[in-house]
Amino acid sequence: MPSGYCNIKRFIWQVGKRRFCGMSDNSGAKVSQPPWQKPMKQGKEAVLKLYNSMTRSKEEFVPISGGRLVSWYSCGPTVYDASHMGHARNYVSIDINRRILQDYFGYNVQFVQNVTDIDDKIIIRARQSYLFEKFVKENPTVTPDIRERCNSAVFDYIRTNMKQDFSSFEQYESWIKSLDLTKEKQLNPKFGMHSASVQKAIDTLKTQEPAESFYEKIQDIFIPTLDAESGDLVNDPETFRKLPAFWEKEFDKDMAALNVLPSSVTTRVSEYVPEIVEFVQKIINNGYAYAASDGSVYFDTIKFDRSDKHEYAKCQPWNKGQLDLIYDAEGSLSDFSSSNGKRSPNDFALWKASKPGEPQWESPWGKGRPGWHIECSVMASDILGPNIDIHTGGIDLAFPHHDNELAQSEACFDNYQWVNYFLHTGHLHIEGQKMSKSLKNFITISEALEKYSSRQLRLTFCSAQWNNQLDFKETLLVEVKSLEQSLNNFFRNVRAMRRDIVHREESGEYVSKKLGDKEKQLLLDLAHYENSIHEAFCDNLSTPAALKNLGELVSKSNLYIASIGSGLKIEPLVDVVNYVTKILQILGFPARQDGLGWLDEGSNSNTGVANREELLMPYVKCLSNFRDDVRRLAIGKASNSEFLKLTDKVRDQDILDLNISIDDRNEQASLVKFLTEEEKQEYKKLIVERDQRQQEKEAKKLEQTRLRDAKEAEKRKKAEMSPNDMFRNTELYLEWDQEGLPLKNKDGSDVTKSMMKKLKKQWDQQKKLHSEYFE
Amino acid sequence: MPSGYCNIKRFIWQVGKRRFCGMSDNSGAKVSQPPWQKPMKQGKEAVLKLYNSMTRSKEEFVPISGGRLVSWYSCGPTVYDASHMGHARNYVSIDINRRILQDYFGYNVQFVQNVTDIDDKIIIRARQSYLFEKFVKENPTVTPDIRERCNSAVFDYIRTNMKQDFSSFEQYESWIKSLDLTKEKQLNPKFGMHSASVQKAIDTLKTQEPAESFYEKIQDIFIPTLDAESGDLVNDPETFRKLPAFWEKEFDKDMAALNVLPSSVTTRVSEYVPEIVEFVQKIINNGYAYAASDGSVYFDTIKFDRSDKHEYAKCQPWNKGQLDLIYDAEGSLSDFSSSNGKRSPNDFALWKASKPGEPQWESPWGKGRPGWHIECSVMASDILGPNIDIHTGGIDLAFPHHDNELAQSEACFDNYQWVNYFLHTGHLHIEGQKMSKSLKNFITISEALEKYSSRQLRLTFCSAQWNNQLDFKETLLVEVKSLEQSLNNFFRNVRAMRRDIVHREESGEYVSKKLGDKEKQLLLDLAHYENSIHEAFCDNLSTPAALKNLGELVSKSNLYIASIGSGLKIEPLVDVVNYVTKILQILGFPARQDGLGWLDEGSNSNTGVANREELLMPYVKCLSNFRDDVRRLAIGKASNSEFLKLTDKVRDQDILDLNISIDDRNEQASLVKFLTEEEKQEYKKLIVERDQRQQEKEAKKLEQTRLRDAKEAEKRKKAEMSPNDMFRNTELYLEWDQEGLPLKNKDGSDVTKSMMKKLKKQWDQQKKLHSEYFE
Repeated sequence: MPSGYCNIKRFIWQVGKRRFCGMSDNSGAKVSQPPWQKPMKQGKEAVLKLYNSMTRSKEEFVPISGGRLVSWYSCGPTVYDASHMGHARNYVSIDINRRILQDYFGYNVQFVQNVTDIDDKIIIRARQSYLFEKFVKENPTVTPDIRERCNSAVFDYIRTNMKQDFSSFEQYESWIKSLDLTKEKQLNPKFGMHSASVQKAIDTLKTQEPAESFYEKIQDIFIPTLDAESGDLVNDPETFRKLPAFWEKEFDKDMAALNVLPSSVTTRVSEYVPEIVEFVQKIINNGYAYAASDGSVYFDTIKFDRSDKHEYAKCQPWNKGQLDLIYDAEGSLSDFSSSNGKRSPNDFALWKASKPGEPQWESPWGKGRPGWHIECSVMASDILGPNIDIHTGGIDLAFPHHDNELAQSEACFDNYQWVNYFLHTGHLHIEGQKMSKSLKNFITISEALEKYSSRQLRLTFCSAQWNNQLDFKETLLVEVKSLEQSLNNFFRNVRAMRRDIVHREESGEYVSKKLGDKEKQLLLDLAHYENSIHEAFCDNLSTPAALKNLGELVSKSNLYIASIGSGLKIEPLVDVVNYVTKILQILGFPARQDGLGWLDEGSNSNTGVANREELLMPYVKCLSNFRDDVRRLAIGKASNSEFLKLTDKVRDQDILDLNISIDDRNEQASLVKFLTEEEKQEYKKLIVERDQRQQEKEAKKLEQTRLRDAKEAEKRKKAEMSPNDMFRNTELYLEWDQEGLPLKNKDGSDVTKSMMKKLKKQWDQQKKLHSEYFE
Repeated sequence: MPSGYCNIKRFIWQVGKRRFCGMSDNSGAKVSQPPWQKPMKQGKEAVLKLYNSMTRSKEEFVPISGGRLVSWYSCGPTVYDASHMGHARNYVSIDINRRILQDYFGYNVQFVQNVTDIDDKIIIRARQSYLFEKFVKENPTVTPDIRERCNSAVFDYIRTNMKQDFSSFEQYESWIKSLDLTKEKQLNPKFGMHSASVQKAIDTLKTQEPAESFYEKIQDIFIPTLDAESGDLVNDPETFRKLPAFWEKEFDKDMAALNVLPSSVTTRVSEYVPEIVEFVQKIINNGYAYAASDGSVYFDTIKFDRSDKHEYAKCQPWNKGQLDLIYDAEGSLSDFSSSNGKRSPNDFALWKASKPGEPQWESPWGKGRPGWHIECSVMASDILGPNIDIHTGGIDLAFPHHDNELAQSEACFDNYQWVNYFLHTGHLHIEGQKMSKSLKNFITISEALEKYSSRQLRLTFCSAQWNNQLDFKETLLVEVKSLEQSLNNFFRNVRAMRRDIVHREESGEYVSKKLGDKEKQLLLDLAHYENSIHEAFCDNLSTPAALKNLGELVSKSNLYIASIGSGLKIEPLVDVVNYVTKILQILGFPARQDGLGWLDEGSNSNTGVANREELLMPYVKCLSNFRDDVRRLAIGKASNSEFLKLTDKVRDQDILDLNISIDDRNEQASLVKFLTEEEKQEYKKLIVERDQRQQEKEAKKLEQTRLRDAKEAEKRKKAEMSPNDMFRNTELYLEWDQEGLPLKNKDGSDVTKSMMKKLKKQWDQQKKLHSEYFE
């Protein structure tokens, strides 16, 4: 306790004491209360700091709102292909950061994320896919002419991508053999990919392959030729819409599988063209952009940077003038010639004039499309306004993309600082290397999810600081699985011990709850780790430190369990599990409703159970399919009415009482529905009415059956008699033949012929009746 | 923006500008970043204030830890009867407050709550129940002697409770008729209860009732007599343990049904007697308590209050000396005579000497038991230490219970302020009146839960400020149900609209996500209400204001939905539902896993679903019972092997694939278990092995059956022949008698007697065979 505290205390009660009397006089007259010591703020609590790319330091987080509201713009995907582990690392890390701000620090985050559905990569991919598919369809056979065109395409491809001119495959192959490939790959990261594509095509062209595999293997080198020949003829906007729409949905599925929270607002570039035009016009009006003669509009980086009111390239000023980065960001459909109308090679396109074979929108500068950087400035500002708390994205976007966003927005709104905190997630490496298709270590999200669970991936991302590089390697995964296992074991153990105690109490046993020194120590440990984890989150949302502390807390708890034996007290353990579960839930691991651990990952879903129906449906369908089967069998055999009664009871009673209706349908699986209480009562009423009708019908049928049965019994009785026995009446006859027909009457006389005939007729009738009946 | 902001901004960039150069020289040399404007703290954000009984004002909440840790002691139940709506109001309100501190403000709360299982009320209830049950068992017939004892008991009861002396029922009845009952009830709140008990007993004694109803109706007046006669003979500690153990479990069940979070730590008085003795000794040592001659120990209120270092009755000093409150708190087994050894009538017992018929523990002052107030001081301090952030309880406990707790603890620890924030929940009234058994408006928690759902009760408690009086009345419940309905409708609507959009997108439709002005307004509304609700929670955890704001936010959203038609954008609505769900979850309404509304209240459970197994079990049991039935029927009829095959398939395949095993058991319902993936694989393996064995067995059995069938066919063929036909061989015989026994051989000769005998024997054998077979 600070020494000042005691003095204040003494002062308070001395002053107070003088004001108050002793015992009241019982009159109920109002008496003032003694003084209350206001607890002192110690100011020692950690505050949230975030690593800000704009200062490369951890800065205290202060939202613009002055309150709980936080505006956040996250750079979303360019949707032209499957998302990979690099995307997963970025979006899951940002999701974790967002969840900690929302659910740990209690901010109300407006989280806006865009979908880039207009982009050179999309245009090229969409156009080329369209052209290639069309070509393959129109040329089911590989003609010599096609082979010749492919040969030329190989040399064109080598010329464009490897800057070499050859006229024969042999020339190329001896050249490539002479190279130091490691060195080449260092100089050009895509060298390996290009040489692989060329070699595959050469090998294919040397042999005779079926059309399907031929086209598959030469596509890398043939598609650019095809595009060069007739790309400018592709002009149906639908071609440029369908591809990104497909990949946007795939991205959403990947994110759901990774349990990434949906954005508060999603913005699509294609829905923002008019606002982009307006924004560009405003920058021109403010003097920081200019239209070139081809109808493109460029940002004037020099003028902006020289302005007293602005700074260009705030995140990475050391990258100013790095043309490889600048050109790469401009997109491969850009004009990089010296006559492109740019005032400086550092200037970047706000609006791109569209050439034939590129999608286009009207603008004051002619038909064109938005540049890449401008979209984010426009969409973020449209929803979040001219000042934004947090902007996130991968570190590879810092320059020029994010620096250009800052410049554009500050030029438009004429302010100094558009974004207060720029958070950049670190790179992802695979076993120490950059992920790339040529290194064959390229992993899509869905491939990763086949090998690891969503929980394991998230734990892996949590295990690294979000703004550091993460090396996704087998040894790390082994550590992650071990942590997962130890958490699982801990949760299961505590649940089992708790159940055991509940059972013992229910069976009348007295189970003490009194905490001893060991339990009190465990509570102290819990408080200690709660504090450490608070400090970890304050320290730039340090999930690795938080996980480490959680692991230690679990170890302490396991030590307590191991040390205590039969006198174990469950409450402090439940306190620990509740806390660990709460922190894991904040990190995006769904929790059980009872708070006693994370949700088991269902075999059907990596993301935890969305809702009751989703969880129950398979079980209920199982029951219902079973019923269908029993019912079908029972209907097949009339004697099995008991089975039918049973299946009716399940439908009308058992499952209905669980608020589920099963409606039988002819030759289809029965229909399962979850009912409200009212709907259930309605069903019950219908069943009562139906049963009444059924009873009346049954009574009628019973009477009919009784009558028919009486008839049948009579008939049976008559038919039972064998014809051989029907005349064996010793009162009438004396002798019979082998079939029981009388030969002699009682008096010894022969039976007359006419009588014999009459009896034979009766005998024949009975024979027929008897044998029919017993068949 | 504050005007100072612009100046600072200008200063920053002017200073900054001088330090930075323009475009880099492409050398990649390190360039410093431009200056970053640190966002200004505006200090306008609301801070959490709590209404503190110790100042009767809202005070800013500052925890002792200086961090996130908060210590909290909640006065728990005295367990001798069913908990009622007054308890529900207290514990649910405290639960809501705790949840807001934990889950909204992010504090780590150590929540300790006691169980008072030693108390005069418990002692009396336990002893009297024991005595009465014993008496009824030993006296199955109501003898005239018993009637006479009951007559006297009535007069004793009137003397004790109504301070009147009568010698006949008529006297009493004419007296009671003469009274102004309303006035009497005002003077003595229990007058109505007493007069009802007396009248019931008199009516019973005037007639001849069967023993069972006789005892039931006279128990109120007879039990005190019985207790006075032989209460002091009850000395089995088990008698005083069983009753509170039972009611503690019932209390826990009530709390679970109301979705009240379990305590972090539960302390039982009976487990704290040694610590209580030690604590009392320390107070004696510090000079603020003294032992009386009877072995009781009292707190010296005068000395404490006169001390310079302390104050007595900090919560309600105006109640000092209110003997009715003081005596009521001392308990009805206390000695209120002037010779009880107290130095002042305001002094209260820390330790009570136990008389015969009262449970007792050893102490330095003789055998006795703890006083009521001391237990809380001891147990709270044992877990939370000598300074506590928050202490809660019903307002009726403020004086003397809580004021005495403060005095005891401050006397023991020699500090000025044991508790920093004393939060008292307000009273509960029923339709404007105090709840009491005599007013017939007494409602237990389980009775309330038959009429209202747990959610409705919690909403009702949320609708009143926790420290204000709450009138539980029908009109309020109507309002609450209407709010519940409107939230339900809103959640369902948004879910349905979201599903619809997902379906449309899945079927290839393009659904725009672009926000227009209406959607942006809805986002502004959301931010506005987020802020209002933050202020509501800061303002003494005002749930009524929070609920009102949630209701308005839902109305705004509904207005948006109504205004927009087919172009509805789902994202802002999902943002609203997510936020409303989050706040409701913080208030203790369990949320769906998808965050799209609260959990539907299951028909089986008011508290939401605890976990997957609990949710699924009834459905799976339904399936499994169905299987059992089909199986039993099928076993009954050998021909139904198809049904058996089906039930085996369900067990070995369908349900097992859902990670559930169903083990068949003889004459018992089959055993259902949830399996891990490993356990499932183990089962699958066992099934394969079993099937192999089964196939081998089947092959063997098939061969056996084939053999048996061949035998059977032979036998049947033999038995088919009627004995009447067996000798009808015209190659051998010429004539037969009526039973088909030959009379004459083929050659006309009579069949010999010996042959006849032989044939008759064969005939008899065949007759037996034939009739047995066809029976």
